[in-house]
Amino acid sequence: MNTTRYEKGIARLQELDSRPGILAAVEKISPNLARHIAEFAYGDVHCGAGLSARDRELAIISGLCALGFAPVELKSHIRKALNTGLSREEVLEVFLQLAVYAGFPAAINASFAAKEVFDERDEAGIKP
Amino acid sequence: MNTTRYEKGIARLQELDSRPGILAAVEKISPNLARHIAEFAYGDVHCGAGLSARDRELAIISGLCALGFAPVELKSHIRKALNTGLSREEVLEVFLQLAVYAGFPAAINASFAAKEVFDERDEAGIKP
Amino acid sequence: MNTTRYEKGIARLQELDSRPGILAAVEKISPNLARHIAEFAYGDVHCGAGLSARDRELAIISGLCALGFAPVELKSHIRKALNTGLSREEVLEVFLQLAVYAGFPAAINASFAAKEVFDERDEAGIKP
Amino acid sequence: MNTTRYEKGIARLQELDSRPGILAAVEKISPNLARHIAEFAYGDVHCGAGLSARDRELAIISGLCALGFAPVELKSHIRKALNTGLSREEVLEVFLQLAVYAGFPAAINASFAAKEVFDERDEAGIKP
Amino acid sequence: MNTTRYEKGIARLQELDSRPGILAAVEKISPNLARHIAEFAYGDVHCGAGLSARDRELAIISGLCALGFAPVELKSHIRKALNTGLSREEVLEVFLQLAVYAGFPAAINASFAAKEVFDERDEAGIKP
Amino acid sequence: MNTTRYEKGIARLQELDSRPGILAAVEKISPNLARHIAEFAYGDVHCGAGLSARDRELAIISGLCALGFAPVELKSHIRKALNTGLSREEVLEVFLQLAVYAGFPAAINASFAAKEVFDERDEAGIKP
Repeated sequence: MNTTRYEKGIARLQELDSRPGILAAVEKISPNLARHIAEFAYGDVHCGAGLSARDRELAIISGLCALGFAPVELKSHIRKALNTGLSREEVLEVFLQLAVYAGFPAAINASFAAKEVFDERDEAGIKP
Repeated sequence: MNTTRYEKGIARLQELDSRPGILAAVEKISPNLARHIAEFAYGDVHCGAGLSARDRELAIISGLCALGFAPVELKSHIRKALNTGLSREEVLEVFLQLAVYAGFPAAINASFAAKEVFDERDEAGIKP
Repeated sequence: MNTTRYEKGIARLQELDSRPGILAAVEKISPNLARHIAEFAYGDVHCGAGLSARDRELAIISGLCALGFAPVELKSHIRKALNTGLSREEVLEVFLQLAVYAGFPAAINASFAAKEVFDERDEAGIKP
Repeated sequence: MNTTRYEKGIARLQELDSRPGILAAVEKISPNLARHIAEFAYGDVHCGAGLSARDRELAIISGLCALGFAPVELKSHIRKALNTGLSREEVLEVFLQLAVYAGFPAAINASFAAKEVFDERDEAGIKP
Repeated sequence: MNTTRYEKGIARLQELDSRPGILAAVEKISPNLARHIAEFAYGDVHCGAGLSARDRELAIISGLCALGFAPVELKSHIRKALNTGLSREEVLEVFLQLAVYAGFPAAINASFAAKEVFDERDEAGIKP
Repeated sequence: MNTTRYEKGIARLQELDSRPGILAAVEKISPNLARHIAEFAYGDVHCGAGLSARDRELAIISGLCALGFAPVELKSHIRKALNTGLSREEVLEVFLQLAVYAGFPAAINASFAAKEVFDERDEAGIKP
């Protein structure tokens, strides 16, 4: 294991969302997959230069909205999008914009996912 | 036809990219579809408050990268993304970021689409 | 808000299915998205000339079966398909036909969605 | 090979479109795949009771529009849809209706496919 | 009904997984769909020469991982993959390999599905 | 750049297919994307223990067949599948098996891609 890339990825994940997330669950099932998420997805790509964390999360929630089949991952990135500078209104507007390209069901389901995240943050007193 | 929404949409499209685009081709085939693109997709949604044109195009190229099957529409929005404030490097970085969520083939094909747009703009002397 | 398009859409939705549906839930989360569903998806497109409501719902359940990721929307349109003239047997035959083009898992899941709708209607004494 | 199912499928294909189609090309590459297309896709499913040929083709072009990645198959079924009773206007209206559920790029590309089929039929003097 | 193809398919299904599976549920909803699953999907294709049952299941879990929207069918085929010679480690490695082509969310969700199957088999004392 | 991972990935790619491939084209457009393909996709994942190169390519062509939108990448992996031990008959049988899960259009298009690869290899005298 490349400790530096791994540690960099874990630190990035912590910055994006301090709550224990999907990675902990993956680690118990497929340690190799978890390692590559930390090293590659976060340590390499998300930490890369050339795009802000906020813009990365905007791209990710847009891609996941279009894919349609990964609501748990989408909710995890709606949290990260809110934590890196997108407002709740912007998140919902992204999904409305995507209705044009990926269809209304994809946009509706993504908006339902956003609602779950907003409610969860309201209960925990997290802003935005 | 709601002239106001239609005119608003056409004006937005002109701002985003002054070259004749996909809409002209759609108009000859399916006038109703073309009208709704102008009125709804551009007049209503793209002109909506709550998200900048640049962020809308970032969301759109991300969604189209993930969908994978619409290279012509993707190229059209890579042009609009460059015209509304994304740099070429940012466009490529968006597709690299999407490799993590939609897979490398989607990211590679989107990057090939970007290359075609960059070459076309280089020949025409358009920046960025 | 364009009252006429909105009212037309809401009236169409009522005709298609008088039960409170997805729109009410969307309205609480993303009023803009809800408005465009009423105005554009139902007021403009579904009310358009050139195709019967029954044929529109046949097209919609086919598209949703192929997309695969939107069972709640699919169930909502199976209801509308039954309300506009498709029989239960025709709905199941559509999904069998789609197995050839979108694969058996898409067809199986759509048939499970149909079963839920049929059971719900049996309990409520709704025909077909 | 089950001659009866095979012959039934080939006869159905002939009824739907008398021009040599995709099946002939598949036969040279993967005879097993071609056999199952004739026997299962056409001999069993398309010949099944419970849905008219016209409604089957309406379902198929809707599913293929939503899938987005199979323009050659889509064109082949737009031909069959026109041959079994859908008008050109209905075909385009189906794709407009699908824009709501699968997004505008899917609908636009399907409409471009329809245009190619319409032009080809105009040249050959085929109606509708 | 072609008894031979049907019986062959049911026998194959029994060999692949002796537990009552999805087919029994489909039978109650859409007998035609169930019949074609037995006759075509298992009797014809899965029993075909030219590829081992193990390699077929490897192909199927890969395809279902990429499609992303059919977790119940994926779990059913993870069971069959384990019953025909893939180890648990190989199943997880397949999904890691697919992360590169279909993205991490598809791979993560498939790995979660695998975990459910592994736990269920641990409880029932089934190996691997 | 992590030279070891990169070199390992390039060496693996050379083993899988000695012809210059997609990576060279990506390198000119998006060097970062190309680097991660070499380092992560090939150096890390494809070189991982726990699955043979042949089984990895079987999984990859299955996933790409199901995704449907990446024929260039699919052809590149059909080559690698043939180079690592799959026969031409097995490749076609994989796509027939996938017809059941991803639909016939996906299987037909993948078989057309295979035909192009087989023809190209016949001309170059490459076996299988």
